[in-house]
Amino acid sequence: MSKFLTPRLASLAPYVPGEQPKERKYVKLNTNESPFPPSPLAVKMAAEEGEKLMLYSDPDVKDLTAALAARYGVKPENVVVTNGSDEALNFAFMAFCGEDMPALFPDITYGFYKVFAQINGVPYEEIPLKEDFTIDLAEYHKRQGVVFIANPNAPTGIFLPLAEIEALVRQNPSRIVVVDEAYIDFGGESALSLIKKYDNLLVTQTFSKSRSMAGARLGFAVGSSELIADLHRVRYSTNPYNVNRMTAAAGVGAIKDEAYFQANCQKIVQTRAWAAKELSALGFTMTHSAANFLFVKHEAIAGKKLYEELKKRGVLVRHFDKPRIAGYNRITVGSEEEMQTLLAQIKTILEIEYENGSN
Amino acid sequence: MSKFLTPRLASLAPYVPGEQPKERKYVKLNTNESPFPPSPLAVKMAAEEGEKLMLYSDPDVKDLTAALAARYGVKPENVVVTNGSDEALNFAFMAFCGEDMPALFPDITYGFYKVFAQINGVPYEEIPLKEDFTIDLAEYHKRQGVVFIANPNAPTGIFLPLAEIEALVRQNPSRIVVVDEAYIDFGGESALSLIKKYDNLLVTQTFSKSRSMAGARLGFAVGSSELIADLHRVRYSTNPYNVNRMTAAAGVGAIKDEAYFQANCQKIVQTRAWAAKELSALGFTMTHSAANFLFVKHEAIAGKKLYEELKKRGVLVRHFDKPRIAGYNRITVGSEEEMQTLLAQIKTILEIEYENGSN
Repeated sequence: MSKFLTPRLASLAPYVPGEQPKERKYVKLNTNESPFPPSPLAVKMAAEEGEKLMLYSDPDVKDLTAALAARYGVKPENVVVTNGSDEALNFAFMAFCGEDMPALFPDITYGFYKVFAQINGVPYEEIPLKEDFTIDLAEYHKRQGVVFIANPNAPTGIFLPLAEIEALVRQNPSRIVVVDEAYIDFGGESALSLIKKYDNLLVTQTFSKSRSMAGARLGFAVGSSELIADLHRVRYSTNPYNVNRMTAAAGVGAIKDEAYFQANCQKIVQTRAWAAKELSALGFTMTHSAANFLFVKHEAIAGKKLYEELKKRGVLVRHFDKPRIAGYNRITVGSEEEMQTLLAQIKTILEIEYENGSN
Repeated sequence: MSKFLTPRLASLAPYVPGEQPKERKYVKLNTNESPFPPSPLAVKMAAEEGEKLMLYSDPDVKDLTAALAARYGVKPENVVVTNGSDEALNFAFMAFCGEDMPALFPDITYGFYKVFAQINGVPYEEIPLKEDFTIDLAEYHKRQGVVFIANPNAPTGIFLPLAEIEALVRQNPSRIVVVDEAYIDFGGESALSLIKKYDNLLVTQTFSKSRSMAGARLGFAVGSSELIADLHRVRYSTNPYNVNRMTAAAGVGAIKDEAYFQANCQKIVQTRAWAAKELSALGFTMTHSAANFLFVKHEAIAGKKLYEELKKRGVLVRHFDKPRIAGYNRITVGSEEEMQTLLAQIKTILEIEYENGSN
């Protein structure tokens, strides 16, 4: 840290992304990436942009915005595309939170919300999940502030029914509810259908998970044309060319290839059900996940130890060293083959654990 | 604008990028893009990343950072890569400016500095250029604040000698001088050579101009390891995956292809000299530009009118409707053929102008 850094930034704790080790090849089940390559059409369209890179990207990202609007049944003025949905979320903190409008989000959720609040210097409150890790909506009803809800939530995977989201949006029209639907395509019901009805609802989604484009950096937000105009204002005041030509083209390709997207989502849902059953049979308990990951714990082994033992054996999962969830690991639903490897390694680890336990 | 937007953002004027009309094909000399395609190696390496897009990009952008460090004779810890150099500049405003440390920059310069100051809620002062459009360094010596200098400056193209930059950096070690070298490769001398000597100097560069990658969104900042750590802290608190896989790979390819880069810069410098001579012969006066554009005016025609007449004829240049420079147009140095078209259209416009004038 230099002596020049402003005090506010000096005191914040930046986000820590899942590890991306390069020293060996891992079965990577730690950052909720898709096990499937992106749509061949997305790859092709991105490659075709290469020759045109000397020209700036379209600051209005018209083609992709139109494709998204058509796909989700809204108008182009209801959509803004961003450098990952992280950027859309950060824009929402910048645009809508302030001294009198704190950010409200669960104590256990996507770790970036807290960082966004801090980097933007806005007040925030972390509202504890209930004992069963569901969101305690009554606590949000009581408070004023912009609500940030990941639905399904991360790292729990628990999905909040749409009726409850709607009740929250309706109950207080003087504040915005932001629904972060990074994992919505794996079984949840999107709040996008409510956009036309409420001007205080903002929904963000990403191409990183269900569309296999984490490395392309593409997300978007959908809301009333007024909310979206606000986010465009932030975009034009930070980086009007936030989405590069190749990524924008890949996005159009991915949206056009609906069949590929649907098939991949289905495969993940099937693999999730099967892996959950296998893990249960091994004595794991877990939340009911509607996402592309499972959030699991086992009485016989500490969360951190399981993470470490799996890493030694070439399987990466995500462990959060936080009070209420230290017993758990978040395991991405990969390909069937990857999950077979995971299960085999877990069996070995548990056997050693039982042996030592019975010594 | 929605009723939910925070007052600070409601009152700012976002940056206005150069127009990117789609309704017809223009000779596009308005946004300082390169007339040459990116390096074939950059295109190839970007395309090869397509298949890997399901995986997040490396948050440390190790390969590209190492390539840049080697190219510019610094260590990897002296380099941070960003989503265009705009992002590096915005990060510098976030990290180093504050209530007691205003931003200082010329009244006539890159329009984004003012927007960055406003979006980050930091005080700023616009210090008038001298009559001849050179930077009035004595005024900066007198004031405390983070200095932002585009060198060469935009839209004037005027280059400030390195000795004067160094004097400014040395004179006040308690503040940072940020040198924005977006146009440095077209004839200026970079301040990168001073990085090892001063811990209060930050240099930003971009792949947008001299490396023909405006549409890829890639920039970088170079400074002491402490300053760079500060910018990484901001990066990890906003978007740790700010540079996508394809762009990072293209960047490595572009750096490897040094010969192509050098040849293109040389061509622009030659075309600039020739076009300047031709424009002078037509009665234009201009600043002495070290950038890939010319900043020109003509006694016989108003700046805005020339811009409009050229646009009618299919040639786009950039006009800024600001008090001191309204008589000028900024014309990108394109290919020789593009400049021939420009000159031919200008001749026609001037002939009509003279004819009408003599009526």
